[in-house]
Amino acid sequence: MAESSTKTDYVVGVDLGGTKILSGVFTNSLECITTTKLSTKAQRGLDAVVERISRCVQDATDEADLSLKQVAAVGIGAPGAVEFETGTVIFAPNLDGWKDVPLKKELEKALGVPVFVENDGNVAVLGVHVTELKGKPRNVIGIFVGTGIGGGLIINGELYSGFCHTAGEIGHMVLEVDGPKCGCGNKGCFEALASRTAIFQQIKAGIKDGQKTLLTEMLGDDLADLRSGDLRKAMRRGDKFVDRVIEDAAEYIGIATANFINIFNPEVVVLGGGVIAALQDEMMGVIVETANDYAMPGTMKGVEIIASKLGDDAGITGAAVLARKQAKKA
Amino acid sequence: MAESSTKTDYVVGVDLGGTKILSGVFTNSLECITTTKLSTKAQRGLDAVVERISRCVQDATDEADLSLKQVAAVGIGAPGAVEFETGTVIFAPNLDGWKDVPLKKELEKALGVPVFVENDGNVAVLGVHVTELKGKPRNVIGIFVGTGIGGGLIINGELYSGFCHTAGEIGHMVLEVDGPKCGCGNKGCFEALASRTAIFQQIKAGIKDGQKTLLTEMLGDDLADLRSGDLRKAMRRGDKFVDRVIEDAAEYIGIATANFINIFNPEVVVLGGGVIAALQDEMMGVIVETANDYAMPGTMKGVEIIASKLGDDAGITGAAVLARKQAKKA
Repeated sequence: MAESSTKTDYVVGVDLGGTKILSGVFTNSLECITTTKLSTKAQRGLDAVVERISRCVQDATDEADLSLKQVAAVGIGAPGAVEFETGTVIFAPNLDGWKDVPLKKELEKALGVPVFVENDGNVAVLGVHVTELKGKPRNVIGIFVGTGIGGGLIINGELYSGFCHTAGEIGHMVLEVDGPKCGCGNKGCFEALASRTAIFQQIKAGIKDGQKTLLTEMLGDDLADLRSGDLRKAMRRGDKFVDRVIEDAAEYIGIATANFINIFNPEVVVLGGGVIAALQDEMMGVIVETANDYAMPGTMKGVEIIASKLGDDAGITGAAVLARKQAKKA
Repeated sequence: MAESSTKTDYVVGVDLGGTKILSGVFTNSLECITTTKLSTKAQRGLDAVVERISRCVQDATDEADLSLKQVAAVGIGAPGAVEFETGTVIFAPNLDGWKDVPLKKELEKALGVPVFVENDGNVAVLGVHVTELKGKPRNVIGIFVGTGIGGGLIINGELYSGFCHTAGEIGHMVLEVDGPKCGCGNKGCFEALASRTAIFQQIKAGIKDGQKTLLTEMLGDDLADLRSGDLRKAMRRGDKFVDRVIEDAAEYIGIATANFINIFNPEVVVLGGGVIAALQDEMMGVIVETANDYAMPGTMKGVEIIASKLGDDAGITGAAVLARKQAKKA
């Protein structure tokens, strides 16, 4: 395949998360031909993370029997506020508190390929809008629940990024003044109530308080290597405690969804991210029901609330859309 | 003035609030030549309110030595979800629970002039954007604190009204899950925490609990005819209790402001409505400080948080902008 292609027929999309780095090689028609994954290891420091992103991109390219010379551009979704023009991550609490990190510059030096950095939520909603929704709905909000909670807005058919390109920090919408502490330093943020991090903390706190759960049978008392999928397994085996924690999280997501519907009245609300991908059947019913309860009468008319079929690939797909768009401009 | 003008040189803007109806006659260049005011008396029922709006418009026109024949159109900002095309108020908890009220139709019948109905927050932000901000900033959010809390969004230079024209219901953004009950039936809405209604309820509840305040000296134990201006007077005379209630409300408004900055990253956040108009000096410092605390690093760069100079006239001004725009289309 590589032989017959022109020099820059491919783009790479990277989803840089607090837990893992996912890279995908995409054709010009946005078909994903291969993906690779590395853990982020943010605690090892900035240089290590940059090296790991670079390695993950090279692994994916190599896996697809391509060289970096055949890659037109790399797009990256990063979990925090990003200044798009310079490709600087201004602030990323889930990357061990990154501040003013010149990610574009560092990665272009390492890879020798143009790199474009955007907020991960912006990138993910772009991926869903362009590929899954075929660019049709004019106004879309994406809510992505993983280690943190990110979001993105499509307004009048285009990615909306605001005055300084920082729009979409929906994870830090306060839902409960004086609620649990968030990684950003505030209290009661959406992310501190319903992200995977928040869910795992509640489960661990519950076990400490003597709650019974199948999770300790499955993984031991310290819940080593707990994943969202384990929660699903426990729920399907009738674990009442996990049931309640997940229902609470789904209710918060439903309330947040209603907030966005009341504020924006979008045509589509799309939910994604690792938690939704793993627990879609368990959570979507409660999310939609709660959103209906909290949305003002009239505001839900014709509005669709859906789980993205892209699952964990929304980020790399959107990053590839971004890379392709920017490579075309160059 | 009337003699020399062509038939339809004027527009009337109406601000329909939960407490009062304000009408303003505007020239084509959006100069306000007269205003009139009536109380809403929503408890008297729909027909009475429609008659009062109609009377208020006629009073204003007459006050300006004009006849309705010289009015090209009437614009109305209504406190609730509005279907613009039909001019139907879908839901307005602060108007004694109006549901599906065909306001445009009723008023056109009564006045014989084209009537255009929009959500009051949308109308107010339109007024501020076009007249006070000269249409310059691309992305603006307006937060209007009165009997209820309304809002409106200017996105990419235009009024943003969403998929079904119901965007801007920011008063029903939940800020405190399981917080105080709201007129909409939910709990913990922004409006239930920081509107004039919420502030007055907290003051009355405090007095019941034995709190000392100058307000009872000024107005008697039942606080008959309490207004926002009385709170200002009490604060300036050193009333610690009113101070604390207003500081709490300002903090909630600051947190809501930060939520919008995190989600939207607008260029300007404009605060208005009766409460802000009356207590601007007392509240704006706390609002800006709290917004700074809760906004994510990087998202506040260059963002202005201002109190509208239009004060209580933002609504009638925006309604006049709407009427002028629609009259030009016709």
